Amino acid sequence: MSKPWILVVNDDGVTSQGIKALVEAVKNLGEVVVVAPDSPQSGMGHAITIGKPLRLTPVHLFGDIKAYKCSGTPVDCVKLAVDKVLHRKPDLCVSGINHGSNSSINIIYSGTMSAAMEASLEGVPSVGFSLCDYREEADFTAAAHYAHLVAAYLLKYGLPKYSLLNVNIPKLPLSEIKGMKIGRQARAKWEEEYVERIDPFGKPYYWLTGKFVNYDQGHDTDEFALANGYVSVVPVLHDLTAHDVVPFLTENWKLITTNSDEGTVPGVSKEEFNL
Amino acid sequence: MSKPWILVVNDDGVTSQGIKALVEAVKNLGEVVVVAPDSPQSGMGHAITIGKPLRLTPVHLFGDIKAYKCSGTPVDCVKLAVDKVLHRKPDLCVSGINHGSNSSINIIYSGTMSAAMEASLEGVPSVGFSLCDYREEADFTAAAHYAHLVAAYLLKYGLPKYSLLNVNIPKLPLSEIKGMKIGRQARAKWEEEYVERIDPFGKPYYWLTGKFVNYDQGHDTDEFALANGYVSVVPVLHDLTAHDVVPFLTENWKLITTNSDEGTVPGVSKEEFNL
Repeated sequence: MSKPWILVVNDDGVTSQGIKALVEAVKNLGEVVVVAPDSPQSGMGHAITIGKPLRLTPVHLFGDIKAYKCSGTPVDCVKLAVDKVLHRKPDLCVSGINHGSNSSINIIYSGTMSAAMEASLEGVPSVGFSLCDYREEADFTAAAHYAHLVAAYLLKYGLPKYSLLNVNIPKLPLSEIKGMKIGRQARAKWEEEYVERIDPFGKPYYWLTGKFVNYDQGHDTDEFALANGYVSVVPVLHDLTAHDVVPFLTENWKLITTNSDEGTVPGVSKEEFNL
Repeated sequence: MSKPWILVVNDDGVTSQGIKALVEAVKNLGEVVVVAPDSPQSGMGHAITIGKPLRLTPVHLFGDIKAYKCSGTPVDCVKLAVDKVLHRKPDLCVSGINHGSNSSINIIYSGTMSAAMEASLEGVPSVGFSLCDYREEADFTAAAHYAHLVAAYLLKYGLPKYSLLNVNIPKLPLSEIKGMKIGRQARAKWEEEYVERIDPFGKPYYWLTGKFVNYDQGHDTDEFALANGYVSVVPVLHDLTAHDVVPFLTENWKLITTNSDEGTVPGVSKEEFNL
């Protein structure tokens, strides 16, 4: 049996400590290829580059392992890797290890998770790893340990098609981590506050700052797992449909029968909203 | 009763035809404020600007309506609008009208939908509108008609908390549109092919091109609605958890009991994967 192809990607950039740790964690599991952004792309979400071209340049940062830096976003890296580097789909895509948490609502802003999701759209078993420590000099020992375990498992068993995993590792020494806990994305959010400064020319500019607030008390969430010393594992799917709301709307809105010529919505008077 | 506050945002930029049509469509429904990117931000997904500051500048493009251009992404626009322009949450957030479809998988790449989703995270009834016509000179008559109807409905009835709507309008004259159809996000994808070119200095660069493929035959999808002459309405939630996969993993993986010191995954032999 030939070795499985493992695509390694991230959002902190090809020179980050996290991707180095991830390459080390998976390199004996298969044929590893790295395609990662040439600059930090944190918070890029599922952005893709449209309307301008991309660069792809070989780099020699991981010993014998084939690696490229890409001028685009994390999602661009995955697309380009499949089409122009591997010329096939990888057998596994691992993303990270991110410097900082991607649990709960952070997933929607995360380039790390979006890269893994892009691979999952191709039916590739995929996973994003994130360490709950933003520092450049964070200790990736425990995270790499679990990355190795999860990658090995995914190579052997795969995942239900089109799903992927969001794995977050608490900021704890390996010996203090209690194991892994499977759960769901917690309901949480960022409360933003922009700090205003004035530039030397008298004009204002704004810095994003924020406070993370978890308002989900469930014991089956990723936040609960992390707060209690576990690695959190959340299976993820790209389907954003609010399935519970479909029957609600169908029942209450009766849009299907709305005729465009009449220009009315049942229950909304024309006068009330100038229809 | 005071007028509702309506935040208008988009991803094609503050000077696009689509946002002009949307402002016209909702301006008699409440107090309208526009905060939109100063340049096209298509395909930006849920990207936010981290590590560099943002600019916010008043523009006079919509008559008497208060409007700003923002140097950031569509999501940045919503965050800044709440914190620095409105100083409160709006009563409704409308995004678009996008030049081009955001149905099915397009939602995850879409700045239009991410802006609306960001507002939904604040509990604001929100909706993204997209016209299935990419052209700059597209005819927004029908799209604006439906945008008005949907906005009026949302102001009156709201939505289940944290959900939003993805509304796509087919490229048809108003008289040929059959009405609105509620459904789910179709399973579809883009098959990418990067076109390689060589720059004047002999180095390659890559242009993203792609073909949209719908592999979902369901009659309850947004793609089906659009293909059959309806406006598609998909309720959306920011929860990416693959809820069906949670019990599957819990059952098959038994990760909760995995002890980090042992470093094993049940069913995966140490030898097999160098654990």
